[in-house]
Amino acid sequence: MITRKELAKMIDHTELKASSGKKKIKKLCEDAVNFGFYSVCINSCHTKFASDILKNTNVEVCVVAGFPLGANKTEVKAAEAKKAVEDGAGEIDMVINNGLLREGDYEYVERDIRKVVEASYPAHVKVILENCYLTNEQIVKGCEISVSAGAKFVKTSTGFGAFGALPEHVKLMRETVGANIGVKAAGGIKNFKDTWRLIKAGANRIGASAGVSILEGLSLYKYAEDAWLEPEIPCHICPARHVSITSVPKSIFKYYKKRCSNCKYKNKYNKFYE
Amino acid sequence: MITRKELAKMIDHTELKASSGKKKIKKLCEDAVNFGFYSVCINSCHTKFASDILKNTNVEVCVVAGFPLGANKTEVKAAEAKKAVEDGAGEIDMVINNGLLREGDYEYVERDIRKVVEASYPAHVKVILENCYLTNEQIVKGCEISVSAGAKFVKTSTGFGAFGALPEHVKLMRETVGANIGVKAAGGIKNFKDTWRLIKAGANRIGASAGVSILEGLSLYKYAEDAWLEPEIPCHICPARHVSITSVPKSIFKYYKKRCSNCKYKNKYNKFYE
Repeated sequence: MITRKELAKMIDHTELKASSGKKKIKKLCEDAVNFGFYSVCINSCHTKFASDILKNTNVEVCVVAGFPLGANKTEVKAAEAKKAVEDGAGEIDMVINNGLLREGDYEYVERDIRKVVEASYPAHVKVILENCYLTNEQIVKGCEISVSAGAKFVKTSTGFGAFGALPEHVKLMRETVGANIGVKAAGGIKNFKDTWRLIKAGANRIGASAGVSILEGLSLYKYAEDAWLEPEIPCHICPARHVSITSVPKSIFKYYKKRCSNCKYKNKYNKFYE
Repeated sequence: MITRKELAKMIDHTELKASSGKKKIKKLCEDAVNFGFYSVCINSCHTKFASDILKNTNVEVCVVAGFPLGANKTEVKAAEAKKAVEDGAGEIDMVINNGLLREGDYEYVERDIRKVVEASYPAHVKVILENCYLTNEQIVKGCEISVSAGAKFVKTSTGFGAFGALPEHVKLMRETVGANIGVKAAGGIKNFKDTWRLIKAGANRIGASAGVSILEGLSLYKYAEDAWLEPEIPCHICPARHVSITSVPKSIFKYYKKRCSNCKYKNKYNKFYE
């Protein structure tokens, strides 16, 4: 069983919308202090503003770089990370170059990450793979490259892709990176049930805008611990709800179509057969 | 009436997906040459690769900066633009700081744009407002600031927001900036009918991944010119199809809910009343 305090300390309280200004960031920081979250996760233009609010607190400032597409030139990602650290960021969540990873240009991808790791020192770097566009083999490769390039965490998703964190992806990432590297689950995590399944699958950090709801859900948990683990089928983080021919690359669509063809719930959502 | 050649020269042939690698960019460049598009519009990591393919052609390289959220630190957006121009970009499509525009911090927003304009010289800068998160008044203000900061174009959308180009927004932007500044419509433009309505509303540049389909649609146009202008109601670029309480800020949701309450088709899509 997890305490409310322990759970809060696993959460990066997140506000990354294009439309969010200082008012939202101020509220985010205040909530992070009040609820005891690990960090606030924000866009780079807000770093200084959030750092000033959070100085003399235990809440870390986590800033995204090359977000959410990861297709920026390496030097630009590194510059964004460096400036964020100068402005007070303690953690950097960078997005991997997903397109070049998919094409197998591992040398580029590793250099891209290493440059951000170097620019971020002494802040730790999480590498967002954006799993929704990757096969399991590519997820494993992305994790291996990230660790080799000096990342301290791998992370499932940006929250801006076709779908977010899946328990099975978290499990795969944890198996790949071992116990000494962090696994952050993010994207589409709305409540304690989602969170708990992802923690049980191996996540030790959760990225979510719904941090407050997640904590509230914990108080219900003690009355029905088993119920939380049994998924609604297909639960809302099942690929079948999100994968369609327009939302992901054709090869990934085929990959999930084949994979999900063995699922007994395959007809409940029929996006693969439209 | 527009010729196929004229139409092609209004199109920025676009490939901005996180999952796209060099293979997609190569095809994009080849199609742009073969069909005579104005430019290819790409992420910054591909600038050099595309410029090399397109040297000795008439196709421009257009690169996005601070894309698609616009919430990067100003210096990072400017660095991305500068490096893209060094790598061969002739145009920069930057994203405005939508969150701070909404909060009325016009001084910040104007400086943000001006720094990118300066860093991009001699390349021209388009400013993407991401209209889906703005009221009409904010769109007007965003256009005025962009022009004042030295932008050569204003642009409706990133294609990653809640919805894309609307004819009414294009009309408003054209009225605001006058005849000497460009208006680029982008986001959700799938066919010639969409394109033609946006051109008639005042757009002189179109950003789309569907450039080839758009050109193909033109050949049908000559048989039924009037049919193209009559929208399917609500057409797929109507806000009522996309605006929901989760897709846009609450204030914008209320704005459209009120605005659309006068529409005789309001019950056809009921997202405002869910």
